[in-house]
Amino acid sequence: MHFEDFEPGQVFALGTRIIRADEMMTFAREFDPQPQHTDPDAAKDSMLGALAASGWYLCAFAMRMIVDGLFNRAASLGSPGVEEIQWRRPVLAGDALRGEGEVLETRPSSRPDRGFVRIRFALWRRDAGGNDERVMMFTCPVMFGRRPSPGSG
Amino acid sequence: MHFEDFEPGQVFALGTRIIRADEMMTFAREFDPQPQHTDPDAAKDSMLGALAASGWYLCAFAMRMIVDGLFNRAASLGSPGVEEIQWRRPVLAGDALRGEGEVLETRPSSRPDRGFVRIRFALWRRDAGGNDERVMMFTCPVMFGRRPSPGSG
Repeated sequence: MHFEDFEPGQVFALGTRIIRADEMMTFAREFDPQPQHTDPDAAKDSMLGALAASGWYLCAFAMRMIVDGLFNRAASLGSPGVEEIQWRRPVLAGDALRGEGEVLETRPSSRPDRGFVRIRFALWRRDAGGNDERVMMFTCPVMFGRRPSPGSG
Repeated sequence: MHFEDFEPGQVFALGTRIIRADEMMTFAREFDPQPQHTDPDAAKDSMLGALAASGWYLCAFAMRMIVDGLFNRAASLGSPGVEEIQWRRPVLAGDALRGEGEVLETRPSSRPDRGFVRIRFALWRRDAGGNDERVMMFTCPVMFGRRPSPGSG
């Protein structure tokens, strides 16, 4: 996929994956060693009442879904940053999270070989009542290469 | 440290650490498996011209410095999100990055036991000319507990 293939309103399904206790604790011990993320017993006394994933783990977890589900078939050229991350709900071990990317906007770059696609990525969880709640989201301006013109190759 | 100990303009030094090739590639293989982050040979042909750290690795790397250098001695209660991440420069294996947090603003919460401290965290690198350049930054509203009043405990 190239810049020309994106348009506002498109939604990309990125699959559903389970948050595993060992994986989220391994991440937290290395990068975010706070008791609510690393120690199941101490976490019971924390503000969340249970061992919860680090917010940065959720970003990394989502990124893997984005690479596997979208960037691997697209001419992604990276991103200069993230506009906003919202960590909206605590995520617990065993949660099944569904990934999604929604195109908000496309705009050409000053460089003729690429363009920017603003995408809002989100992780959703189904609650006990069968309703989907968004547990995490972030918005990125992603650069994609333009499709080579027929005469250029 | 409690909410009352923060004020706008404070700067917290978070130390200097080296980006290691094996650690940044281990992260990228798990969470951001794009060739410019995982494969030194393929990276030579990428937009950056060399193997570069995933932006999400830089966030996680900075978070570890924040926990070790600030949160471990503060009554941190987490953060609802991040206002903005800027990935300003490619970061390469061997780079020495200095971490820093600058308090932008403090404001009480509607809950009487805590308050919000907006902090801009950054990673800096010294360039060949001896000038520091900011390679990555993000801004977080972090919740901190208030100091218990003398009569409450």
